[in-house]
Amino acid sequence: MSSKLEKKAAAVIKRAEDKGLAIVTAESCTAGALATLLADAPGAGTCFYGGFVTYTKTCKSALLAIPPALIAQHTAVSREVALRMAVSALKASGAHVAVAVTGVIGPEPDEDGNPVGLMHIAATTRGGHTRHVKIASRKTSREANRERALAEALTLLDEILAG
Amino acid sequence: MSSKLEKKAAAVIKRAEDKGLAIVTAESCTAGALATLLADAPGAGTCFYGGFVTYTKTCKSALLAIPPALIAQHTAVSREVALRMAVSALKASGAHVAVAVTGVIGPEPDEDGNPVGLMHIAATTRGGHTRHVKIASRKTSREANRERALAEALTLLDEILAG
Repeated sequence: MSSKLEKKAAAVIKRAEDKGLAIVTAESCTAGALATLLADAPGAGTCFYGGFVTYTKTCKSALLAIPPALIAQHTAVSREVALRMAVSALKASGAHVAVAVTGVIGPEPDEDGNPVGLMHIAATTRGGHTRHVKIASRKTSREANRERALAEALTLLDEILAG
Repeated sequence: MSSKLEKKAAAVIKRAEDKGLAIVTAESCTAGALATLLADAPGAGTCFYGGFVTYTKTCKSALLAIPPALIAQHTAVSREVALRMAVSALKASGAHVAVAVTGVIGPEPDEDGNPVGLMHIAATTRGGHTRHVKIASRKTSREANRERALAEALTLLDEILAG
């Protein structure tokens, strides 16, 4: 993992620690890499709670109670599904802040025709504040797109913790 | 991630694919790195279902219904907790095979005095087959212990899929 991402993760954990807030993650395309980054930051033991990796549509419904109809209507890579993933992760875990990532990192488009590089990232707090960002990365490498998704998720998390 | 681990993950996914079985993970100390490895293997989309990252004790109870009394009795790094994590992940997800990893990768012992390098890994199937391995790694680096945990988890997964 790049040292730039490690520094971003450390800053997020420091901010959460200062505020006494616990973070939970819900990941599709990053598949646990965001959780690993956060867990590796100094101080994570007190404010990184854990997370969900929901790689398939079935798993999004089983672990995070995402209605199959919502996925059918918007596809798994959508603002609606990202927000619902974040809200469900928060509710199931009892953490204070949740971040969710769903996207297509490649090398192939997904089965619904969403292109490589499309990502939706959402964050939410217990107080009901939400943030969302849509990314259309032009990178084609899986690793480059994963790093972009991780960087954007950490930025969104930092913003919602600061807000 | 080392190419040796990537090869092991690819072999596990190939075996699961051949058998039409879906895998779910439950990770404490590896914090999502096992899920990322499995998701990166060719063919993962059909047989890697997703997983849980339960980094704290509270999170183990919230996400995987591990009774706090079980953790209090055996500590979070124990055969009993590893097995329960695997069984709960299987039940919650609807996958066919689950693997769970709990351990102390360092740099410090955990709050219950479990030493750096102690790991418990468990796997279970819907049919009730279970496997467990206890590792006492002498390595002190967090990265080396994480890689050892990942290698052992992939081996256990491969064995239970073959059995």
